[in-house]
Amino acid sequence: MEGNPTLRLRVFDLNCWAIRYLSKRRQERVRLIGDMLHREDFDLVLLQEVWSEQDYNDLKVKLGGCYPFSHYFRSGVIGSGLCVFSKFPILDTLLYQYSLNGYPYMLQHGDWFCGKSVGLVIIKISEIIFNVYVTHLHAEYCREKDAYLPHRLVQAWELAQFIRHTSKAADVVLLGGDLNMHPEDVGIRLLRGWTGLQDAFVEAAHFEGCEDGCTLVPNNCFTDKSGLLPFPLGIRIDYILYKAISSYVVKCEELKTTKGAAPGMDVPFSDHEAVMATLHIQRQGQAAGTTFGTAEPTLADVVTEARTEVGVGLQVAQRQRYSSGRMALLALLLLLQAAAALGVLVGMDAGHPFPKLSFCLLAFLAIGVLLLATGLHLFHTMEVKMLHGTEEQMRMALRALQERP
Amino acid sequence: MEGNPTLRLRVFDLNCWAIRYLSKRRQERVRLIGDMLHREDFDLVLLQEVWSEQDYNDLKVKLGGCYPFSHYFRSGVIGSGLCVFSKFPILDTLLYQYSLNGYPYMLQHGDWFCGKSVGLVIIKISEIIFNVYVTHLHAEYCREKDAYLPHRLVQAWELAQFIRHTSKAADVVLLGGDLNMHPEDVGIRLLRGWTGLQDAFVEAAHFEGCEDGCTLVPNNCFTDKSGLLPFPLGIRIDYILYKAISSYVVKCEELKTTKGAAPGMDVPFSDHEAVMATLHIQRQGQAAGTTFGTAEPTLADVVTEARTEVGVGLQVAQRQRYSSGRMALLALLLLLQAAAALGVLVGMDAGHPFPKLSFCLLAFLAIGVLLLATGLHLFHTMEVKMLHGTEEQMRMALRALQERP
Repeated sequence: MEGNPTLRLRVFDLNCWAIRYLSKRRQERVRLIGDMLHREDFDLVLLQEVWSEQDYNDLKVKLGGCYPFSHYFRSGVIGSGLCVFSKFPILDTLLYQYSLNGYPYMLQHGDWFCGKSVGLVIIKISEIIFNVYVTHLHAEYCREKDAYLPHRLVQAWELAQFIRHTSKAADVVLLGGDLNMHPEDVGIRLLRGWTGLQDAFVEAAHFEGCEDGCTLVPNNCFTDKSGLLPFPLGIRIDYILYKAISSYVVKCEELKTTKGAAPGMDVPFSDHEAVMATLHIQRQGQAAGTTFGTAEPTLADVVTEARTEVGVGLQVAQRQRYSSGRMALLALLLLLQAAAALGVLVGMDAGHPFPKLSFCLLAFLAIGVLLLATGLHLFHTMEVKMLHGTEEQMRMALRALQERP
Repeated sequence: MEGNPTLRLRVFDLNCWAIRYLSKRRQERVRLIGDMLHREDFDLVLLQEVWSEQDYNDLKVKLGGCYPFSHYFRSGVIGSGLCVFSKFPILDTLLYQYSLNGYPYMLQHGDWFCGKSVGLVIIKISEIIFNVYVTHLHAEYCREKDAYLPHRLVQAWELAQFIRHTSKAADVVLLGGDLNMHPEDVGIRLLRGWTGLQDAFVEAAHFEGCEDGCTLVPNNCFTDKSGLLPFPLGIRIDYILYKAISSYVVKCEELKTTKGAAPGMDVPFSDHEAVMATLHIQRQGQAAGTTFGTAEPTLADVVTEARTEVGVGLQVAQRQRYSSGRMALLALLLLLQAAAALGVLVGMDAGHPFPKLSFCLLAFLAIGVLLLATGLHLFHTMEVKMLHGTEEQMRMALRALQERP
């Protein structure tokens, strides 16, 4: 970087929708993604929903020539689905698993099983230290009645805190991923405000792609059309965010998205559109101060708004903890009663099979309910703890914001 | 710090053994701890096993005058048990929950329910930024056949990585806690080697307390004497570790431990002895380089040793995953068979109650085993993922160590 030349960095981000047995035409699409990455020759590739390690290994073999460095983040039952391919050596990695991530009993949603996380890889290019974060937050299944909003807000807060605490020695911070939040949502405002990250779509000097930068669009053949009815253009939930920390300036020269099926192909890469940014990084004379991304009074409002939502989630979790505890207690009483009745019936002859059978069934039912309710109670106790902890942290943050001169 | 004067910092660390309903004379001891902390007037107090938030709140009220700043870290079902009291403002906090922490079905050990974590608080004293970490690692229940060693090693590795990644902008790093490892154990060597942290006991110019700095000693009336039989002096598992990162030097002037019951009292503060360090922090001319704590070839040996142990844990976890999966499959077959038999019997009269009852019982048993085995299978799948991920990270670290000039 002598004489302050510019470093040009091409970053690719895509939620690949590569769930084994469930995602349509998965292997074909992973092959297409690999071909395109090989052809396009990006500097940095951030992928989500690569749930199968076999798919990652196939990509690694195919891309070994142009992206010699890569990392796959393991977590949860299925895996975090996060991986990074890079032209430049990866110096170090760290994984932070979000403390809340939906409910194990919501099998139809399944987010809990993925162990949603943020992965950090540290890369050095021409003496510039890049902290590159890749993440995937909890999905939004129903925007009108979003039961997962408090969990997603806890994740957005933990993501922001993790970035702030781990990026202090970095020159440039990059975050790519499926944040499952619209640009105006409180979680995005919180993340951007609290970290100072800039949105490549907003900052880009030149844009090419789906209207409004949407990454989940109705004319992609794999998207769920009913969920997009209120948004005829689609929604923007995949992002590339960035900021310079030390004496560098980052500018987004160009942002592109894919647009459904690629030319000459009948199948898109994924149900999401890819986001591709060309960034310019240049050294400037003086170090930038560590400021927030939003004016402080506005940021305080955002934190307050997020804290209120977390508080609502806390109340729901407390109610669920209470009712599961009560259910466990009732099941225990039922079990004791069934056991007592069986004890009395044991001495009687086999001529009255009905009560013995039904008390047996009752006892088994009670055991089942007891185990289930106890599990639920423990889970919701943890949920209450984490929501409470986050609310407390946000309260501390608000106090710090208010006390700043 | 003009003219490079010295900052003197008195740090207190104690595993309080304050488990509600289980720890003996808990409330009395928490009161005594509070009285002593009030009297002794430390700068920084790091506590573990404060499981009850009520105990924390009581301490907070009592210590509000001399330690106006405090933080309680919430996690897991019971809570992390970690809290910090400080004379100086706490600027920020972050919690990292370890990815592995024992097994939920080991109810008699219970570590899983505590959500063992490392808590970070950032404190600024006379313009010096302190990153203060407090933690408590998984207990060792049987030293000869320590089934939890791989989990504790994963925790030690995650602790080291978390400290390295979050402390880059700090001037001084302090770590206090119950690490549940002897000074020569591979986990401690890994933690110290990989972070460069120094052991206050080893470095102290003056020491006063239990012989060899032991913190779990046989003449404490609450300790389990049988576990300490091979160690007549006791063991040292509670530590204060430190290092300077930027242009500061940290020296340990004095280290003390409590010695069983305090003078004039019939009850010790806890089953552990407290560790109290007096540190001197002084600015020096030039910034210290970020070096490892151990010479690199030795460090590579330590990482290799740790990686081998994690690999052993991985094999065990893979076997457990396999056998729980097989058990789930057998239970499913049994359930199908019982259901089929019940289907045949349904049309028959009630004169043959025996088979119906026993097939009902069989079906319920099969459901129970199926649920249990599936749960275990999911848990061990996560365990395999995390052990595998850690092994991979250690492999990367080894490569980086070997590639250094």
